[in-house]
Amino acid sequence: MKKRIITVSREFGSGGRTIGKMLAERLNLKYYDKELVKRISLETGFDPKYIEEHGEYAQSRSIFSYIFGAQSHPEVMKGMTPADFLWCMQRDIILDIAEKEACVIVGRCADYILRDREDCLNVFIHAPKDKRAERIVKLYGESDVAPEKRLDDKDARRRVNYRHFTGREWGVAQNYHLALDSGALGIEGCVDLIAAAFQCEE
Amino acid sequence: MKKRIITVSREFGSGGRTIGKMLAERLNLKYYDKELVKRISLETGFDPKYIEEHGEYAQSRSIFSYIFGAQSHPEVMKGMTPADFLWCMQRDIILDIAEKEACVIVGRCADYILRDREDCLNVFIHAPKDKRAERIVKLYGESDVAPEKRLDDKDARRRVNYRHFTGREWGVAQNYHLALDSGALGIEGCVDLIAAAFQCEE
Repeated sequence: MKKRIITVSREFGSGGRTIGKMLAERLNLKYYDKELVKRISLETGFDPKYIEEHGEYAQSRSIFSYIFGAQSHPEVMKGMTPADFLWCMQRDIILDIAEKEACVIVGRCADYILRDREDCLNVFIHAPKDKRAERIVKLYGESDVAPEKRLDDKDARRRVNYRHFTGREWGVAQNYHLALDSGALGIEGCVDLIAAAFQCEE
Repeated sequence: MKKRIITVSREFGSGGRTIGKMLAERLNLKYYDKELVKRISLETGFDPKYIEEHGEYAQSRSIFSYIFGAQSHPEVMKGMTPADFLWCMQRDIILDIAEKEACVIVGRCADYILRDREDCLNVFIHAPKDKRAERIVKLYGESDVAPEKRLDDKDARRRVNYRHFTGREWGVAQNYHLALDSGALGIEGCVDLIAAAFQCEE
């Protein structure tokens, strides 16, 4: 079936976001990353910063979230936390976008949310840790925290978030049509391969 | 760096072997699958059938293997089982082949054995269970055991064998430069993409 949508899941620092953007330009597809955050914010009322932080990353739950969070109004929230509620809204928006537009969606478990669509190509981008560390220092600069630790923290939170909402393991090859090592294949090389896979009709 | 070698790891029934063979023909590389079994047999004295069974698949160890196996001559075998010994010989032969020849090697943890070579492209092929079941019935015919069970058994034994000898998890995207769903991309589609990745110089 002809593909219309590409979802890009990625390890932090692997260049997945850049690859997604380049694919959208090359294939003339709408690109959803910050755009998705904006739309979710408009439709839900959540602050864009909250969405960026909670839409993809597991939080360490403090005791306050149990005392003052969703659990204090079980009859209204049906036991949902704000993060659960955000997930449901985000899922509905992604399903709606996929129905209406040919696009590239970066992150936010879109591979899982759109798993039943045959017009969707699910991609995972990863790279060896040394290359990712080099990339994040180049892009975001140095910080007090060692780049390897920043990578581990961010990926661990993505992994936990993915497992929590999908029941699947993040980064397992079988969850994606195509998984690529951008360290070995290069950013341009990944774009070429994904574009070729997108255009091949099986 | 220019690539010389392709290793193909694969789920049972995903068409990985066929893809490996087609790649070798298209890229004019030597193909190692049954050839590797023959060479291991010649150099080790193990029967080809034993190598096929034990070179990639974990065995359920019977009590007899502990009584009559390697453990009964610990001073000579250094506590190795025949399967451990076969693994070491197989590893040395794969390292030797990689040093001398541009080739495609199917299975046998070659991705792990050759992980330090920069001229090696490591590929993993998988497919949804229904497509693999259909494929094995078409290729190997029906049997008393349901195709889904045959797939589960074979993959579980490959997984255990891989974990035992490499300490890594089989099928995790990060272990491969390229992981492809042959059910979604087609056998020809996979060959095209791998050949393109092989030829791209990063």
